[in-house]
Amino acid sequence: MDGEAVNRAPGRNDPPLGWRGGMAEPIPIIGGTGALGYGLAIRWARAGERIVIGSRKPERAAEAAEKVREAVPGADVEGYENAEAASKGPVVFLTVPFRAQSETLTNLKQAWSDGQLLVDCTVPLAAALSGKATRTIGVWQGSAAQQAEEMTPDSVTVVSALHTVSAPVLAEEGPLDEDVLICGDRKADKAKAAQLIERIDGLRAINAGALEMARIVETLTAMMISVNVRYKTHAGIKLTNIPDGDHWE
Amino acid sequence: MDGEAVNRAPGRNDPPLGWRGGMAEPIPIIGGTGALGYGLAIRWARAGERIVIGSRKPERAAEAAEKVREAVPGADVEGYENAEAASKGPVVFLTVPFRAQSETLTNLKQAWSDGQLLVDCTVPLAAALSGKATRTIGVWQGSAAQQAEEMTPDSVTVVSALHTVSAPVLAEEGPLDEDVLICGDRKADKAKAAQLIERIDGLRAINAGALEMARIVETLTAMMISVNVRYKTHAGIKLTNIPDGDHWE
Repeated sequence: MDGEAVNRAPGRNDPPLGWRGGMAEPIPIIGGTGALGYGLAIRWARAGERIVIGSRKPERAAEAAEKVREAVPGADVEGYENAEAASKGPVVFLTVPFRAQSETLTNLKQAWSDGQLLVDCTVPLAAALSGKATRTIGVWQGSAAQQAEEMTPDSVTVVSALHTVSAPVLAEEGPLDEDVLICGDRKADKAKAAQLIERIDGLRAINAGALEMARIVETLTAMMISVNVRYKTHAGIKLTNIPDGDHWE
Repeated sequence: MDGEAVNRAPGRNDPPLGWRGGMAEPIPIIGGTGALGYGLAIRWARAGERIVIGSRKPERAAEAAEKVREAVPGADVEGYENAEAASKGPVVFLTVPFRAQSETLTNLKQAWSDGQLLVDCTVPLAAALSGKATRTIGVWQGSAAQQAEEMTPDSVTVVSALHTVSAPVLAEEGPLDEDVLICGDRKADKAKAAQLIERIDGLRAINAGALEMARIVETLTAMMISVNVRYKTHAGIKLTNIPDGDHWE
């Protein structure tokens, strides 16, 4: 059986060969004390990934890590202040509320290393300014992701993802079967984010276009909230007619 | 078997009871000579619906109707100049390119009857101004649908739909399995559009929110075009976790 497992073609949710193994670097989640960050941490912990949770206050990060370990016994998860957390792995997920995005990125300016990838998951909901969660606000740069790109060093690349996956659904035990739309200017960078996202069983990463496409994809959160209210659910998005096979190879 | 068919609970794609029968009023498609209008006409014709195709030039409308009859033998479809076409049925679909939306609605101003419903399917793609089809332009009213609402009498209601369904896929014979996101301010109006849309086998109508939500849903066309280029396909959208049952009753 082992030989068979080694020789078969790798499946979508297999660990990427030669990239992440037993000594894999952890996945930093900045804003990991929030709902989306917690949900991602739970799912990645179940997939055997190492996680680092970042928060403004290290004690809150440590509490969140403890909560993940309680939910997923044996989880390899630690909590640090944001800047230290961001330094722990090559692909950093930013899951803070939009109202905290700018301040968080300002505080991270000295923390980045050349070649790191930032996966921005923030959404400019009008709720950030005490407006409705079914509306968005205009970001000067075009999108939260483009604001993130402006606020990070040139040596750090930004892609945008995870705007349509429900945080409560991630935090539950149930199966997932939905897509994650990824925006970014280079396919190779999007592929790195896709590889981690597809470590979560039931998520398929879709190449939605250049980073500027985040202007559209980020607003989907507001639409999903509108649908969720009407159907009393936590909907997800799945694209139809996507050809089989690994687009990211 | 007939008795069984009559007594069973109506299914999603059954003709709406008591609303559209053998004497059903036709469905006007303004811009029915374009790709989306043609695709809708083909599918509705197959479902046994009566169709009226509108065009600026009556001879072009007649040609398009003839094309539908060739594709669907026995189809009940006629072609008229836009204003006459729009007067033929209670629920009018507007499928012109965005560049023609304003002019078309200006020319229709005298054609409307109280209580008609306009289903706006136009998308403000930047292609309307020789820009990219993966970008949109800002519409002063917020969306093409809201512009349509401003340009129609108060006694005519506007809803917005059909921005993510591929026109080429509609025009083909293959099965469909995707959602149509409908925006509008009253559920009863959206339900009328949903009823017609769900007459097309494989389409499920989703209540996406108020008409202002068209600002988001219309931009999905640009995102789908971006995905289609990358995957060499004609993708559709399907929401996950939508509860079973008829939301529109």
